[in-house]
Amino acid sequence: MPFPLPPGSTIGILGGGQLGRMLALSAARLGLDVVILTPDEGSPASRVSRETIVAAYDDPDALARLAALADVVTYEFENVPAATVETLNRLGVPTAPGPLALAVAQDRVEEKTFLNAANAPTVAFAPIDSAADIEAALPRVGLPALLKTRREGYDGKGQAWIRDASEAAGALTSVGGVASILEARAAFVRELSIIAARGRDGQTAFYPLSENVHEGGVLRTTYAPAKVTPALQAEAERIAGEVLGRLDYVGVMGIELFDLGDGTLLVNEIAPRVHNTGHWTQDGCEVDQFEQHIRAVAGWPLGDTTPAVSVEMTNLLGDEVLDWAALAADPAARLHLYGKGEPRPGRKMGHVNRVKRL
Amino acid sequence: MPFPLPPGSTIGILGGGQLGRMLALSAARLGLDVVILTPDEGSPASRVSRETIVAAYDDPDALARLAALADVVTYEFENVPAATVETLNRLGVPTAPGPLALAVAQDRVEEKTFLNAANAPTVAFAPIDSAADIEAALPRVGLPALLKTRREGYDGKGQAWIRDASEAAGALTSVGGVASILEARAAFVRELSIIAARGRDGQTAFYPLSENVHEGGVLRTTYAPAKVTPALQAEAERIAGEVLGRLDYVGVMGIELFDLGDGTLLVNEIAPRVHNTGHWTQDGCEVDQFEQHIRAVAGWPLGDTTPAVSVEMTNLLGDEVLDWAALAADPAARLHLYGKGEPRPGRKMGHVNRVKRL
Repeated sequence: MPFPLPPGSTIGILGGGQLGRMLALSAARLGLDVVILTPDEGSPASRVSRETIVAAYDDPDALARLAALADVVTYEFENVPAATVETLNRLGVPTAPGPLALAVAQDRVEEKTFLNAANAPTVAFAPIDSAADIEAALPRVGLPALLKTRREGYDGKGQAWIRDASEAAGALTSVGGVASILEARAAFVRELSIIAARGRDGQTAFYPLSENVHEGGVLRTTYAPAKVTPALQAEAERIAGEVLGRLDYVGVMGIELFDLGDGTLLVNEIAPRVHNTGHWTQDGCEVDQFEQHIRAVAGWPLGDTTPAVSVEMTNLLGDEVLDWAALAADPAARLHLYGKGEPRPGRKMGHVNRVKRL
Repeated sequence: MPFPLPPGSTIGILGGGQLGRMLALSAARLGLDVVILTPDEGSPASRVSRETIVAAYDDPDALARLAALADVVTYEFENVPAATVETLNRLGVPTAPGPLALAVAQDRVEEKTFLNAANAPTVAFAPIDSAADIEAALPRVGLPALLKTRREGYDGKGQAWIRDASEAAGALTSVGGVASILEARAAFVRELSIIAARGRDGQTAFYPLSENVHEGGVLRTTYAPAKVTPALQAEAERIAGEVLGRLDYVGVMGIELFDLGDGTLLVNEIAPRVHNTGHWTQDGCEVDQFEQHIRAVAGWPLGDTTPAVSVEMTNLLGDEVLDWAALAADPAARLHLYGKGEPRPGRKMGHVNRVKRL
């Protein structure tokens, strides 16, 4: 194996959005080049990378070219087609995280089944293929319950709440009538997340828990480190360690958690990639989640995750980015902009980290 | 005027080395695109920029293309041909810093003459065109004296010490027989520098003084903030403020200083660009010299220069970069690599910032 990859090596990244962009910037600081594969022209990541291949993720010529250029390939999103990873591996280029992590993260039933087997508790759930399945599951899952598509869907899309058994058929129609999962509502007091990393040698590193506030299904603000007991941090690290180890994971993972307020953490979902709730690390830690992911993927030792400051991270959605001049003038605000053109409503255009000394 | 340039604007940079690269990375974080003009294929900066024009700095077609792409043009080195700046300005693209700063920085006699007129003391000096000029100047300049070419030369190149009047002719031959400057030796106790910035609105910002150790004419280590009295910091800021103001300067400038140990600072030289002795700011300050320069050039407000930590910056020269794996494993070391291929002896391949909490 060529790991650790020496400076001058090339990291391939599937996806050209802001996560790929921030990964590319971190790779550059370590002397590593980046090649992006994305179907979009002029993507945020391509503006800061050595080369971009504009093609569909399953385009065989594009994958052959990526395999020829890259020493390792990673991704900024979890819905990478399994065939893409198989093709890259067959072409001899290693990928990280591996196919198992992707398969688990791409199907919400597989994900929760895996998590429970890994001693990572979740809400009660049931796989759903019909309205009858919903009615059969409701006694166990309880009301209200949340219906989600098994695959795809993010930021609150592809979801429907069921408050009464009579809503079962309508809910299934509203998520498109596709294979779904019914989830119990978690009686959480707050939403937390942990950014965890695992290196090629099995070494793990955990950032402090952050507390996350969502609005309309989209992350609004992250506070980090979250005000939690050492026991709760330890429980989050236990869960993350189980998940990373059982997946033989390489890279950074974002794990969203429900804090039930009694010392119990339930896993909401895992994201096998750098995560919006980890953006605070850019101005909070010596080694941020992006550099950490590059380090892991390149086979480098993981970096220090100790925070020097506390950070409030706020997403800039749509027109909010037009406040850039005022934010640039605010010495407490560290501005991160993604190089996206049009500030469409709800579009993640950037974020601001507000730093306080601990 | 188009300033402040909104996110999505394009910064043109003349030069594709590590300074251009780190400027490009900072521009990206602010949502600004970068286009590089460099004569070199595969330059460090081009790997992290949206587009690169590979051409000579005075190539008219290349300059026309750069002017069409860039909203403002800046540079990573001071020896930009004056005709290049004139051409860009004639094509309607603003440049920063301006032609006066370049002219002053490109000629050591002009530089020292300007500095003295700006109440910025320097060593005694004399313009030299012949061995007879040296002999005539020696009684005033004293022995030993340093002969340097007026133009070009850096990192100790194009210099010769004269320890005896009889060495005059030989010294002039050894620097190439070109127009030169004879400089008195400064009786300094240490070498300091200040990184200063001035915005388009005339606002100024100063980083704390750093102490610099050179080896063989090349920067080895920077310690920052330097241990100095508030009065010495104030004197450095007074000098920097005079220099920036009189040049109507826009951008970051590095000012190398001799500390005579009695409260006197002499200016050794000014660099109208980001500076190797300012690399410590990357891990020492909220806004580092690279972001500060981009902010100034783009007409944004200047950022906070207060250090949160002390930093020891060490250049990685030539083969020293081969220690990357050990440095990556050291939690106290922040590694910055430049994406250069061959580690030729003495070549600046990267640097390491070692951070200590204040």
